[in-house]
Amino acid sequence: MNSVKVKSPGTVANLVCGFDILGLALSEPYDVMELTLLNEPKVIIRNKDNFNLPTEAEKNVAGVVLLSVMERMNNTIGFEVVIEKHIKPGSGIGSSAASAAGAAVAANHLLGNIFSSDEVVQFAMNGEKLASGVKHADNIAPCILGGVSLIRSIHPLDIISVPSPDMFVTVVHPQIEVRTSDARQILRQQVLLKDAIKQWGNIAGLIAGFMKNDYELIGRSLEDVIIEPVRSILIPGFHEVKEKCKGAGALGGGISGSGPSIFMLSKEEATARQVEKVMKEVYDKIGIDYNTYVTTINRKGVEVVA
Amino acid sequence: MNSVKVKSPGTVANLVCGFDILGLALSEPYDVMELTLLNEPKVIIRNKDNFNLPTEAEKNVAGVVLLSVMERMNNTIGFEVVIEKHIKPGSGIGSSAASAAGAAVAANHLLGNIFSSDEVVQFAMNGEKLASGVKHADNIAPCILGGVSLIRSIHPLDIISVPSPDMFVTVVHPQIEVRTSDARQILRQQVLLKDAIKQWGNIAGLIAGFMKNDYELIGRSLEDVIIEPVRSILIPGFHEVKEKCKGAGALGGGISGSGPSIFMLSKEEATARQVEKVMKEVYDKIGIDYNTYVTTINRKGVEVVA
Repeated sequence: MNSVKVKSPGTVANLVCGFDILGLALSEPYDVMELTLLNEPKVIIRNKDNFNLPTEAEKNVAGVVLLSVMERMNNTIGFEVVIEKHIKPGSGIGSSAASAAGAAVAANHLLGNIFSSDEVVQFAMNGEKLASGVKHADNIAPCILGGVSLIRSIHPLDIISVPSPDMFVTVVHPQIEVRTSDARQILRQQVLLKDAIKQWGNIAGLIAGFMKNDYELIGRSLEDVIIEPVRSILIPGFHEVKEKCKGAGALGGGISGSGPSIFMLSKEEATARQVEKVMKEVYDKIGIDYNTYVTTINRKGVEVVA
Repeated sequence: MNSVKVKSPGTVANLVCGFDILGLALSEPYDVMELTLLNEPKVIIRNKDNFNLPTEAEKNVAGVVLLSVMERMNNTIGFEVVIEKHIKPGSGIGSSAASAAGAAVAANHLLGNIFSSDEVVQFAMNGEKLASGVKHADNIAPCILGGVSLIRSIHPLDIISVPSPDMFVTVVHPQIEVRTSDARQILRQQVLLKDAIKQWGNIAGLIAGFMKNDYELIGRSLEDVIIEPVRSILIPGFHEVKEKCKGAGALGGGISGSGPSIFMLSKEEATARQVEKVMKEVYDKIGIDYNTYVTTINRKGVEVVA
């Protein structure tokens, strides 16, 4: 076998109070990638979508991941990858992570799964470094592993899968541009200790809520007093969406990754659909184009489909 | 029945990375308190120990708790309390919390358990306010409930019991004075965002470790980059104790509450005893008097014994 097709899912990083340390995988949307092993050291990229992403390997998120795998194999092999992206770049639901993680998992599969999941995450993080300037794993880890992932530490890498109850996830992507690098730069370097204490109370509550299947505790813990007050300025309609979605029964939610997408968790599908309706109403009124998704937590992560 | 005797345990607050939000109850040491219901609105305090604590109700931790219960009952009742403290005041293992929690639980018991556990915690917090100037619950909650308690929020009060595996706790109390108010004042009001991120990665890891019975994860998560570097300055020998205890096999540990006691968690009793030996060696060498305890996590909290 020298060719493999994978589905690589979107992800929600941060999960409100878990800035830089928490993420979950979505059942939809997902990218489809087909990777072929070559017997010469080169990386060929073909895009089957209309996003006009670079096809030069050094400038492409999947490309740099494949180059790093190639280098690890002493440049004895190469890859051709055909990418069919459905996760819009810049949406805030892990588009670059899906490319990076999909490439890393597919490459490992073709090589006979010789790398551990931590190594696969490390390869994929090279893609995130290209995309955002920072080697972070809060999209990569859940994209690869599925479910909810905690990145306790980056150096050394320490990833913990966090059990969680089934939930529905509603996402709205208002079609505005928020650069990840901008979203990072506007954050203050210092925070008040009293705010940090609130935040770690909430992240502790969220982990306990997930592991106890306590939906109300999950809802109460989805509060961010540090990042959201700053970043939400970049997202028109954010506070109205959040307030009305909670009014419609969502457990809670907030900015997905660095935005502009907003996500909401719900216990029931009917609630998640009502939440979608509320999101649409807000952006129809404001007059900003949008996509919405009503989906679930993806338990599998990147999946080999052929 | 108009009289009750309770055992009220010592507690370890903060648990390294959970400043102000986390605590656990110890099987030893514990105070013994005997409370009697009076039919007139007064609080009588008798101390059966040598700590010379105030017997004027307004100035005594148990006293102010009993006064607040009395007030809630429209001053139709009063209490007499006999206190036999074994938890040395100022040790950092929840001496004031034990007085406050013991008084609150005993009073509720005599009144037919008419108050919820949240209300009992609220009454007891009046005692912490007197003792440290701050209404905190990270000693009170585990003292009353047993086990590990997360205080997600103080306003509104949101206490979550966190399941945890059995562990041994070794405590050393070097006989030096660290005032809770001093230990609080030396903390910086602002912290670096990057440090706060490390801290919430660790608190999330610690909660996940407790709930997964993952001792190694518990150990890796017992890291504090914000409070310990500042407060440890007040505790001679701290770094040597910590390093040598981990060398002796402890999972990890740090300052208990605001100090000066230091606690260490171990998986096995033999390790916990070896840790005690190491602690003794360090303080023998430095020439500071100390007490040590080798104990377990108390699962019951304040216990009615007669």
